[in-house]
Amino acid sequence: MSNPTAAMIVIGDEILSGRTRDSNMHHLAGELTKVGIDLREVRVVSDDNGAIIAAVQALSSAYSHVFTSGGIGPTHDDITADCIAAAFNRDIDVRADAREILAEHYARAGTEMNAARLRMARIPEGAALIENPVSAAPGFIVENVHVMAGVPAVFQAMVASVLPGLTGGQPLISETLRIDRGEGDIAGPLGALAEEYPHLSMGSYPFQKDGVFGAHVVIRGSDPGMVEAAMTKLKAAFA
Amino acid sequence: MSNPTAAMIVIGDEILSGRTRDSNMHHLAGELTKVGIDLREVRVVSDDNGAIIAAVQALSSAYSHVFTSGGIGPTHDDITADCIAAAFNRDIDVRADAREILAEHYARAGTEMNAARLRMARIPEGAALIENPVSAAPGFIVENVHVMAGVPAVFQAMVASVLPGLTGGQPLISETLRIDRGEGDIAGPLGALAEEYPHLSMGSYPFQKDGVFGAHVVIRGSDPGMVEAAMTKLKAAFA
Repeated sequence: MSNPTAAMIVIGDEILSGRTRDSNMHHLAGELTKVGIDLREVRVVSDDNGAIIAAVQALSSAYSHVFTSGGIGPTHDDITADCIAAAFNRDIDVRADAREILAEHYARAGTEMNAARLRMARIPEGAALIENPVSAAPGFIVENVHVMAGVPAVFQAMVASVLPGLTGGQPLISETLRIDRGEGDIAGPLGALAEEYPHLSMGSYPFQKDGVFGAHVVIRGSDPGMVEAAMTKLKAAFA
Repeated sequence: MSNPTAAMIVIGDEILSGRTRDSNMHHLAGELTKVGIDLREVRVVSDDNGAIIAAVQALSSAYSHVFTSGGIGPTHDDITADCIAAAFNRDIDVRADAREILAEHYARAGTEMNAARLRMARIPEGAALIENPVSAAPGFIVENVHVMAGVPAVFQAMVASVLPGLTGGQPLISETLRIDRGEGDIAGPLGALAEEYPHLSMGSYPFQKDGVFGAHVVIRGSDPGMVEAAMTKLKAAFA
């Protein structure tokens, strides 16, 4: 009765060079947790055919769902769609319904539909489209891989349209206690509590602020009563 | 004459659950770019022995340098040191010099050196220590893997102490031009420019702000003159 698993692939040299700070990973992580899908791994890869194809193949066979962000725009460095097609050995070409979506969007906006924009209608054979309410150019789904845009507003809209179609498990409940003691003082009692509750996950996340050392201790599990019972004991140990 | 390559492993359930937004990846990416080391891949993995060991083995054999963040504190969920030892088939135990560093630090602070804190002196056989000027507990280096703390202030201090010892390649120069046009209008001229300069990397990173569509176009390369020449042509194309 374990939850479905997921992995994410963030595609883009701009993240790896430090030029852009990725925000899509954090957004997806939070959304998946809410619906009871366990994000187990994220890989950030460069705009490189071999790297993208290898990550797609490895993660799509290892996890229930895979989500990608980035590389589906109109410029020469947008190679994700071709890599997905190659990873699943499918043809890829401009598809009529995707072209229609773009044509309508650009007609409304009074923008020319040129060859570069038409690239965004290239969809791997047999894929289902993902709606893009922000800038029209669709994402798509091949097998268990959901291919989405890198621009955060578009990525978030695509995640919102895709998640209701996926069957999640039990949402993970988490409770957090801030303890203003060094982790070295927390470790002993917390370790004992973790042994007592093998079905819960307990994590300690240290911080230091204004010279004070402390930690946020998080107890996670799918049974709210069990999480609460453990949290009560944790509070008693550090009262 | 290509640059050394690097990969990073971010270890921690708190990132994958969406509880914490990682900042170490973005920091390391920027620092490596400055010294001419190409960050090619990042993997975020959970607090799971098998996942950590597999990532360490895969990335340490594929890239010149590997950097990890997270999981070296005193609590039961801090399993990184044991995983690194297992990945390289080395013994691990409390080491005298690491214990001495901790003992001095806690004596100064008037803090008890208990069993949990002593765990942070457990170092894989043959490792070199990485100084921690913030909270004393050291990181360490095994072969080409640099094991560092997850707390951002500590991670950043460890990166600063480690980087000067690594031989970088030629620093990457990058210039950015903001173009307030849709990417579909940028794609054609940019693609032609990219073909003209095969030794430069050109990327287009779209944005939309207050209803305006545009893109930051970044030209990167190790030859400053070549980067500037290409940027001059790019500006002329969109003047």
